[in-house]
Amino acid sequence: MEEITKSSQTIFKGKIINLRIDEVILPNGKISTREVVEHPGAVVIIPCLKDKIVVLRQYRKPVEEVLFELPAGKIEQGEDPLKSAARELFEETGYQAEKLIKLTTFYTSPGFSNEIMHLFLAQELHMEHQQLDQDEFLEVGLYSLDELISMILENKIKDAKTIVGLFWLKMFKAGE
Amino acid sequence: MEEITKSSQTIFKGKIINLRIDEVILPNGKISTREVVEHPGAVVIIPCLKDKIVVLRQYRKPVEEVLFELPAGKIEQGEDPLKSAARELFEETGYQAEKLIKLTTFYTSPGFSNEIMHLFLAQELHMEHQQLDQDEFLEVGLYSLDELISMILENKIKDAKTIVGLFWLKMFKAGE
Repeated sequence: MEEITKSSQTIFKGKIINLRIDEVILPNGKISTREVVEHPGAVVIIPCLKDKIVVLRQYRKPVEEVLFELPAGKIEQGEDPLKSAARELFEETGYQAEKLIKLTTFYTSPGFSNEIMHLFLAQELHMEHQQLDQDEFLEVGLYSLDELISMILENKIKDAKTIVGLFWLKMFKAGE
Repeated sequence: MEEITKSSQTIFKGKIINLRIDEVILPNGKISTREVVEHPGAVVIIPCLKDKIVVLRQYRKPVEEVLFELPAGKIEQGEDPLKSAARELFEETGYQAEKLIKLTTFYTSPGFSNEIMHLFLAQELHMEHQQLDQDEFLEVGLYSLDELISMILENKIKDAKTIVGLFWLKMFKAGE
């Protein structure tokens, strides 16, 4: 089923993503093209503060909406995902976690992007001080897991990585 | 929290995605840029055949891996998502569904793309004949929901839309 890369052309190099077009040889020998959005990979964190979870409200330009999301962010060059998770949690919420547990990894849009998302559970939080990037504006909120699961069902939470994270916690971790 | 678009520049128009760069005014009045991958939107379908679910194995060039995925595909211009779901289910698996039920919508990567995913449950299937696109190569398999949930836990299923769909079925629909 694999496709062999015949040639590859970089169209754009940006702050967060690059775009390239691959010419590929299909399993039947024919030629096609694939549009690939290169992404450095990202982390998403479920911060548990006693019986509540820390979530953010954040404006997202691509969808022109304010979304509820778990804290998340891209991996810096050469950074270990565990470090990225600790850094993003701290920058976005002000919390530092004594325990950061890797739960899984998944691809957000493998049809057109290589973005991989590393999911972490953060426990034993203590508050330091939020340190947002210069172009980041967000609100922090605390909800119970069951409230958040209801918000998924009601389509108030619309972000895939956040849905995966909260469902994962409910299915595999709740009650542990 | 909203960002006002100051200017917008299309960098690339492709088969599936377009890329544009927006210059935005931030809530604090400063200027920044946002890289936006425009996508026409997509559908993902959970096809239920008695006590089994139809899943695909498909090579994905962006991640250079064969992935387990629910049937899915992009929405054609002007197409109603319900029609897209029926069409993609038929093309990719050969099944037609008497019942197609909309479950939810979500964004796959709202940090850099506007891709919206419409999730459908397909029931009362009957086999017609698979009609793949010229550049599509995939294998069809049948698994129970519990087998698929285990495959998520074991990281054998790595695709976000598939994880969201299967968790949704397990959390909100199983046993109905």
